[in-house]
Amino acid sequence: MAEHNLAIIGGDGIGPEVIDEGKKVLDYLAANTPGLTFNYTEFPWGSAYYRETGRMMPEDGLDQVSANEAILFGAVGDPDIPDHITLQGLLLPMRRAYDQGVCVRPAYLHPGVTSPLAGKSAGGIDLVIFRENTEGEYAPVGGRLYPGTPHETVMQTNVFTRRGTERIIRAAFEYCVRRNRRMKVTSVTKSNAQAFGMVFWDEVFQVVAADYPQVETESLLVDRVAMDLVRWPEDFDVMVASNLFADIISDIAAVVTGSMGLAPSANINPEREYPSMFEPVHGAAFDITGKGIANPLATISAVAMMLDHLGEAESSRKVDAAVVRSLQERKVMTPDLGGTATTSQVGDEVVRLL
Amino acid sequence: MAEHNLAIIGGDGIGPEVIDEGKKVLDYLAANTPGLTFNYTEFPWGSAYYRETGRMMPEDGLDQVSANEAILFGAVGDPDIPDHITLQGLLLPMRRAYDQGVCVRPAYLHPGVTSPLAGKSAGGIDLVIFRENTEGEYAPVGGRLYPGTPHETVMQTNVFTRRGTERIIRAAFEYCVRRNRRMKVTSVTKSNAQAFGMVFWDEVFQVVAADYPQVETESLLVDRVAMDLVRWPEDFDVMVASNLFADIISDIAAVVTGSMGLAPSANINPEREYPSMFEPVHGAAFDITGKGIANPLATISAVAMMLDHLGEAESSRKVDAAVVRSLQERKVMTPDLGGTATTSQVGDEVVRLL
Ligand SMILES: CC(C)[C@H](C(=O)O)[C@@H](O)C(=O)O
Ligand SMILES: CC(C)[C@H](C(=O)O)[C@@H](O)C(=O)O
Repeated sequence: MAEHNLAIIGGDGIGPEVIDEGKKVLDYLAANTPGLTFNYTEFPWGSAYYRETGRMMPEDGLDQVSANEAILFGAVGDPDIPDHITLQGLLLPMRRAYDQGVCVRPAYLHPGVTSPLAGKSAGGIDLVIFRENTEGEYAPVGGRLYPGTPHETVMQTNVFTRRGTERIIRAAFEYCVRRNRRMKVTSVTKSNAQAFGMVFWDEVFQVVAADYPQVETESLLVDRVAMDLVRWPEDFDVMVASNLFADIISDIAAVVTGSMGLAPSANINPEREYPSMFEPVHGAAFDITGKGIANPLATISAVAMMLDHLGEAESSRKVDAAVVRSLQERKVMTPDLGGTATTSQVGDEVVRLL
Repeated sequence: MAEHNLAIIGGDGIGPEVIDEGKKVLDYLAANTPGLTFNYTEFPWGSAYYRETGRMMPEDGLDQVSANEAILFGAVGDPDIPDHITLQGLLLPMRRAYDQGVCVRPAYLHPGVTSPLAGKSAGGIDLVIFRENTEGEYAPVGGRLYPGTPHETVMQTNVFTRRGTERIIRAAFEYCVRRNRRMKVTSVTKSNAQAFGMVFWDEVFQVVAADYPQVETESLLVDRVAMDLVRWPEDFDVMVASNLFADIISDIAAVVTGSMGLAPSANINPEREYPSMFEPVHGAAFDITGKGIANPLATISAVAMMLDHLGEAESSRKVDAAVVRSLQERKVMTPDLGGTATTSQVGDEVVRLL
C-alpha cells in the first residue's frame, strides 16, 4: 500500500477512451483502499501533437516521463501519418529508452467469449508470451544504398545481444516457476533460415534452460508455431520469442482467444531503473474512434498487470477477478463481444463488480 | 507437348515417399499423352548423404542439376542434424543459386476438407501467396561479435534489392490480372517497426501498383494479416510478402484450409535461365516416415504447377481436376484427412481419376 506516481499517455484514436476506463478503476481502488494513492501526470502526446509541433512528443519527452513509477499507455498510430513516424516517435523509443526488455502478453480463452476456432472451450487456451522488447528485428539499424536506382540495395539489421536475449529467456523461466504454471517453456525461432541471430538465440535458450531442470522445454520454428496456435493452442504454456516473432504470435494468440479487445501487455524494465509501461495490445482503431464503443477490458487488464508490478498484488487480483466476472455474466459487453454497451458502461460494470 | 528433363530430389523423411506418387502421375501422363516424355535424373541427396560425406550434396551439385528444366523436390531436414546445416546445405542454396525469386503458394479450402476455423465452407478460402524467395530475411548475411562473452552482439541482416522486390511484386500483379483473379493484391510488411527494409518494400509496391490501375491494393502489417487469416481469410485474393513473412503466412493459410498435406509450392526462376523447383510446403515429417501414410496430394499439386510451368497447361489442369475429385469423393484419403488409405493408394486413385 503506497503512493504511486503514474504517467498517463492516452495517445491516438480510441487510446484516450479506453484509458479513461483504466483510470476509473484506479480511482475506485484508491478511494476504497486505505493508504493507496495514485498521482497522475497526463501527457497529451501522439499524432495530434505531431500535427501541431512536427514531433510525437517534446524533445525532452523521455525525461519528463521518467520520474514516474509506471506508464499507462493507450495506443498510437494515425491513418494519415506513416506508421514508422508515429511508432518510432513515441511508443518504440519509450520501450527502448526505458530498457523495457521484458514484454509479457497473456492470452486466455475466457468464459463467455467465442473463439474463431471450432471446438475450443473456456480455459482451453491459457498461455503467456514473453516478448523481447528492445532489440532484435526492431533495432533501428540499417540503410539504403543507391536509393531510387534499379540497383538499390537496402539493409535492415536485426541485433541480438546476449544481455537482452538472456534477460527475456530468464524472465520466461522465472515466471513459469514462480507463478506455478504448467512447467513448460517454448522458444520460438527460425534457425533453419537465419543462421546468425536465431542460432544464437537457441544457444542462449539452452544455457538458461539448464538452470531450470524442472521445466520441460521445446524449441520450435515460428512458421510451425503460427500453425500450432491455430491447430492446438492448448499445448502452449509459457512462450518466449524475439521482438518480431512474439509480435506476430501474440496477435494470433489474441485472436484465437476471441478478441483483441481483451489482450493486455506489460513492458517491463526488470531492473526497475526506469518506468515500466502497460498497454492494451490493440491499436488506435480509427474506424471506431469517437463512437464510445471500444472495449476497455484490455486496458483494465493492463491496469491489473500494472498493479501487480507496483506491488499491489491484492488490488491486482481484484481487478482481474472483476474482469473475469464481467465476461462470465455477459451482461455489459461492447459490440466486439456481441453486446451493445458503451466503453464507459463496461468500465462502470467492472467498478460495480469490484 | 515435348520432352522434359527433370531433376528428382526426394530428400529426407517422407520426401521420397511422396515424390514416388508425383512420378506415378507423370508416368501416367507420359504413357497416355502422345509426344509427351519426361526424362528423370534422380539425385540421392539429403541427410543420409550428409552422414556419409559431410555434405548435403556434392560440391558440384548445383552444376549437376542445372541442365534440367525443372526440379521436383520432396523435403529436407533431420531430427539429428541442425536445421541450419540441412537447409543451408541443399534447399536454400538451390533457391538462391537458381535465382528462384518467385515462390507461388496457393491455398484453397477444398470440398471434403475440414478447416479448424468455425463456419468456413468449401471454396470459402481461395488465396495465392507470392513469396520473395532469394533474399530479404533469409540472406545469409550476419555475424557474431565477442562470441561466448556476456557482451556478445549478433547481427542478422535482411537484404532487399530493388530487382528482387520489384520482381516478386510484379509477379503477383501479373498473376492477378492474367489468371483473372478477384483483382486484389495485398502487400504484407512491418513498416511501423522496420523503417529500412519494409518502408522500401512499401515504396516499390506503390510504384508497381501504379501499372495496374484495375487492381485494388492494400498494404497490411504482418501481425494484422496473421490475425485476419484466422478471422476472415475469405478477404484475401493475391498476397505478396517477403521471404520470412510469406513463410509464416503461407503456413497459416495452409492450416486454415485444412491440411498441410495439400499445400504445394513453386519456386520459379522467371527469366528461365535456371531450373525452377516444385515442392510440397510440408517438411520431412519424421514421425510418420516409413509408415506409408504421408499425404501425397501436396506433391501431386506441385506436379500440376510444374506442368503448367513446362507449358503443359492441359496436363496441368487434368491433374488439378483429379486432385479435387479425389477430395470431393473422399473415398481414398490418408489419415491426416480422416481416412485409412496409404500414400500409394492415394497416388493410384489420382491416376484412376485422370
Ligand atoms: C504498433 C507496433 C509497432 C507494435 C509492435 O509491433 O510492437 C504493436 O503491434 C504491438 O504489438 O505492440
Ligand atoms: C524448411 C524451411 C527453410 C522452409 C522455409 O522457411 O523457406 C520451409 O519452411 C518452407 O516454407 O519452404
